[in-house]
Amino acid sequence: MRELKNLQDKIEQELGQLQASNNPASLYEPIHYFLSIGGKRIRPILVLLAARMFNNQKASVINQALAVELFHNFTLIHDDIMDKAPLRRGLATIHEKWNDSQGILSGDVLLIVSYQYLMKTDANHFGALFTAFNKMAVEVCEGQQMDMDFEHRHDVQIDDYIEMIRLKTSVLLGCALELGAIVSDASEQDRKHLYEFGVNIGIAFQIQDDILDVYADASKFGKQVGGDIISNKKTFLYLKAREHANAEQQARFETQLSNSDFVEKVAVVRDLYDALHVRQMAEETMNHYYEIAMKHLNSIQVSEENKLELLALADYLMNRDV
Amino acid sequence: MRELKNLQDKIEQELGQLQASNNPASLYEPIHYFLSIGGKRIRPILVLLAARMFNNQKASVINQALAVELFHNFTLIHDDIMDKAPLRRGLATIHEKWNDSQGILSGDVLLIVSYQYLMKTDANHFGALFTAFNKMAVEVCEGQQMDMDFEHRHDVQIDDYIEMIRLKTSVLLGCALELGAIVSDASEQDRKHLYEFGVNIGIAFQIQDDILDVYADASKFGKQVGGDIISNKKTFLYLKAREHANAEQQARFETQLSNSDFVEKVAVVRDLYDALHVRQMAEETMNHYYEIAMKHLNSIQVSEENKLELLALADYLMNRDV
Repeated sequence: MRELKNLQDKIEQELGQLQASNNPASLYEPIHYFLSIGGKRIRPILVLLAARMFNNQKASVINQALAVELFHNFTLIHDDIMDKAPLRRGLATIHEKWNDSQGILSGDVLLIVSYQYLMKTDANHFGALFTAFNKMAVEVCEGQQMDMDFEHRHDVQIDDYIEMIRLKTSVLLGCALELGAIVSDASEQDRKHLYEFGVNIGIAFQIQDDILDVYADASKFGKQVGGDIISNKKTFLYLKAREHANAEQQARFETQLSNSDFVEKVAVVRDLYDALHVRQMAEETMNHYYEIAMKHLNSIQVSEENKLELLALADYLMNRDV
Repeated sequence: MRELKNLQDKIEQELGQLQASNNPASLYEPIHYFLSIGGKRIRPILVLLAARMFNNQKASVINQALAVELFHNFTLIHDDIMDKAPLRRGLATIHEKWNDSQGILSGDVLLIVSYQYLMKTDANHFGALFTAFNKMAVEVCEGQQMDMDFEHRHDVQIDDYIEMIRLKTSVLLGCALELGAIVSDASEQDRKHLYEFGVNIGIAFQIQDDILDVYADASKFGKQVGGDIISNKKTFLYLKAREHANAEQQARFETQLSNSDFVEKVAVVRDLYDALHVRQMAEETMNHYYEIAMKHLNSIQVSEENKLELLALADYLMNRDV
């Protein structure tokens, strides 16, 4: 998807020229460092593709795209502190390279700067843009808190999990598309369909992430295969397995939770997953959300041709191996 | 000032009914706890008084007042984590009562909710409100970073210090008044004068804080007298003393920095301050900023009667002993 690369380059270029101050350097250096780490820039691209879908040629759409990417980076910086993550894309996280305080504060500034970019457009869009953005932003925080709560909870159900990933990751994809629709004066109905398309693609994407963690081709996968198993993360596969395991399988599962031989742990848990067919269950659920997403895309009142780019992006996201 | 008490009560009541969700409880409990700790609520009162000054009777002004107070609480929660402060008004801080992660996340949510309240008004004010608020919000973060940097710097000058307190605390007072002016359709000039009144009162207020830390009546002062001296904080008094001390006094100062006998340390440093007349210098500078503030207040094109409430508040702030 060559166009994806072009859009990614455009976003990188804009992020490099970010109109943020440089003083005090101790605040802005971490920000510029973190933005230079890179990423797939899927979220800002969604804003741009939504605008194109409605034939919106305004150059200012890049500002709402940047708002979404800056917001995303704010969440990554703060999540990294909460998760005590030393690395992000193989490079030191801000709180590791500097300290927690600079991580907290540079994240705060990025959140505020995202609002500054959000409003770089016609004033008649402010109400809709801020309403959608604020709602999404609160929900993402709620999702992060739910995710942290899950670590200590033993009663997490699949529905809780879906709700958590909806809030933590999917509403941002939906909101990105919605912002693109708002600045393109799309109808209320088209806005809602596009938002739901994004949210449901996001849920499918996250379930696929859970599948890839266990079943990815190690030679292509960017991360350690089985990382979620090693950390006892309550993923879709984990929860489905615990739901369906018989007493003997539950016992085997329990033993593995504290197994420090990670190679054995990953192998045993994967065997349990295979025996319980949880990969198939995950794929069915993933496809279910993908189909809901497609129904919403189909309902949008623009030509089929105008939907091709978003379809191609959805296809790219769902058929990745990393 | 009975009216101050009425306004404080109104703010408390509104904060108690804050339209924030309760789910997940692990996210919202810390928020409701922190808001219930109380405070003088000066910042939201400034929004309300600015609106009254322009005869603005709209009930919705309370929303911009709450936005300012919620923003202020966001900064307190995050600052407490950065400062590793165990207590706030004698009660456990969020990161102490819960943990750092919940402190970070509940602060993040408060910042976002402050934007939700900011926009609860007529849409024609959105542009001005968000522009003023965003600028202030970034500056407050810059001020906090400068303050942290000062802890490790040995070349801090009085001008750096004034700039730090302007950013960290004063622009929020100015912005609070400005928001009240914006929703009251005040002229551009009146808005600016009101903002400058707030900023300069804020600087005077902060210098007075530095004076009170050393010279307050211990029986009335809410905090430990000499706390800034004990923690080697680079206050106005500290910087002025270091600027004017002779070699012998510098040496005496240096010795005290690591003195763990806090009673002696406070006494010796206060003696140095007295010998160097830094209290008088601080009072002169404080009065200088107070006078600038008054000039701006005088320039506002409303009746003298309409300025009385803000004058009374400024008077109250400058003549406190706590």
